[in-house]
Amino acid sequence: MRVLSGIQPTGRPHWGNYFGAIRQYIDLQEKNDGFYFIADLHALTTVRDPEQLRDNVINAALDLLALGLDPDKATLFVQSHIPEVTELTWLLLSVTPMGLLERCHAYKDKKERGLPADAGLFTYPVLMAADILAYDSQIVPVGVDQVQHIEVCRDLAGSFHHTYGETFVMPKAQTLDVGAKVPGTDGQKMSKSYDNTLPLFGEVKKIRKQIMRIVTDSRPMEDPKDPEGDHLFELYRLFAGQDEVAAMAEKYRAGGFGYGEIKKAVAEVSEAHFAPARERRQELEKDLDSVRDVLAAGAVRAREVAGGVLERARSACGIR
Amino acid sequence: MRVLSGIQPTGRPHWGNYFGAIRQYIDLQEKNDGFYFIADLHALTTVRDPEQLRDNVINAALDLLALGLDPDKATLFVQSHIPEVTELTWLLLSVTPMGLLERCHAYKDKKERGLPADAGLFTYPVLMAADILAYDSQIVPVGVDQVQHIEVCRDLAGSFHHTYGETFVMPKAQTLDVGAKVPGTDGQKMSKSYDNTLPLFGEVKKIRKQIMRIVTDSRPMEDPKDPEGDHLFELYRLFAGQDEVAAMAEKYRAGGFGYGEIKKAVAEVSEAHFAPARERRQELEKDLDSVRDVLAAGAVRAREVAGGVLERARSACGIR
Repeated sequence: MRVLSGIQPTGRPHWGNYFGAIRQYIDLQEKNDGFYFIADLHALTTVRDPEQLRDNVINAALDLLALGLDPDKATLFVQSHIPEVTELTWLLLSVTPMGLLERCHAYKDKKERGLPADAGLFTYPVLMAADILAYDSQIVPVGVDQVQHIEVCRDLAGSFHHTYGETFVMPKAQTLDVGAKVPGTDGQKMSKSYDNTLPLFGEVKKIRKQIMRIVTDSRPMEDPKDPEGDHLFELYRLFAGQDEVAAMAEKYRAGGFGYGEIKKAVAEVSEAHFAPARERRQELEKDLDSVRDVLAAGAVRAREVAGGVLERARSACGIR
Repeated sequence: MRVLSGIQPTGRPHWGNYFGAIRQYIDLQEKNDGFYFIADLHALTTVRDPEQLRDNVINAALDLLALGLDPDKATLFVQSHIPEVTELTWLLLSVTPMGLLERCHAYKDKKERGLPADAGLFTYPVLMAADILAYDSQIVPVGVDQVQHIEVCRDLAGSFHHTYGETFVMPKAQTLDVGAKVPGTDGQKMSKSYDNTLPLFGEVKKIRKQIMRIVTDSRPMEDPKDPEGDHLFELYRLFAGQDEVAAMAEKYRAGGFGYGEIKKAVAEVSEAHFAPARERRQELEKDLDSVRDVLAAGAVRAREVAGGVLERARSACGIR
């Protein structure tokens, strides 16, 4: 199956991103033909500093490759390296009812909050549809909040088919597993908007400090505690093996140990978990040219596919 | 000066198109670096039949070449052959305030009439801006009703510059001369919307019939008439030389001649006027490959320029 996933290069990934999405879609490369793109054209609507954007794009590539995206198994590329996508965007725009875009969350939310919106935000579901359709994608793994985008994509493909006949492969959303809870440093769900994130990469010492400062309740050390629902325990569980988790649960129930101890344990298991990726990332950072080569080879492969799809679309609507 | 003009391939040109626009912008090739494109991506928002669109595009090229557009002096190309333009459209969309598009005539009119609009109609001023900016155009000859588009283009270039710094050449509108009145077969202004047009090309016999059926008033033959304001006289004046026009005015004032006579005269001078173009067109029709070669060479030249502009824009916003 052709699986497509887009990564927004808008900042550094955190544990929540990793367990909630990145790890899951990278896993899909094993049994599928994975196409992964770094969505710099989408990022334009929010990242207005060109240096920052360039930096974010190369960092996103480093992150993905370090975390196990394998260019021999999957295709990794930068969205803007595939000009076929913006051309397809126009072809789709010409069959996109305004009402459909007016109902899309991102634009609607901004409008309802009385904020001025750019046409980029308004039309980006069409760019996203072009991203998906350009590669004959069959499966698009998404978070629950992004299912609407796949529906819009299917609607636009349907609208194009209605006007010009069958042209595109109809994609399906595959909802990512949200089973694993990833609490942030304040105990709420880890999210950039709550400013409570723990980064995947970065200085180990600094991350350890952040972990040691995770908010806890003030129950006395000697009280036995229920591990379930405790956010430090939930964080520990993300990384530790079954036996370790059981032992830690035992300690919670027995009482008489401090939060400092579990924080240290979280720091240790997470560091151990990310150590190979961290090492790979450091190696890759020293050889950015090889990363650029991976992206260039990915673009060649992606353009082969997108070129064929665009030819079908052009010919269907009569511009060739 | 780089002069840019876009031609909508939405139907066959009529005398009104010719005197009001085509002749004027072709004339600009003499003292300028003329870029002329056939706007098939724009036409998509109205022409939904692929065969029709393909046909319209090649016919538009035939019309322009027959009417004197000289590929040795100017650059003639098809809009969709320049993928740089749709990519630039996205870069501009990301700095386009929604309010600006909501105020544009074509969309506003349709919305006010309660008609459903497509996002293609809504965003086409941005595609138009990309068309203009992609070629470092300095002058854009337009009808009075299109001046808004150039203003939108300047606004978008300004918005991009404000965000990312100077990137584009700022174009200027040059309003086409609307001095020559071109009445249609019913005496109103010649326009496709009034269904009163006389085509430039087509069967001579058929056009002559249309001319002979032009509506006239029923003043008796022998009455002297004022030539000024008479639509047949106005049509005659478009084609005839100064002396012929003076002689015809004299006949009007003397009276005693019928409208049939002036109609015949209009048919004769117009046939004579368009005869060389008609002949050139027939030659070109026999050699469509050479027309396609002209368009291909034009696309190469246009892409050279657009490629440079796009590189500037990409680098300014950080997607390269």
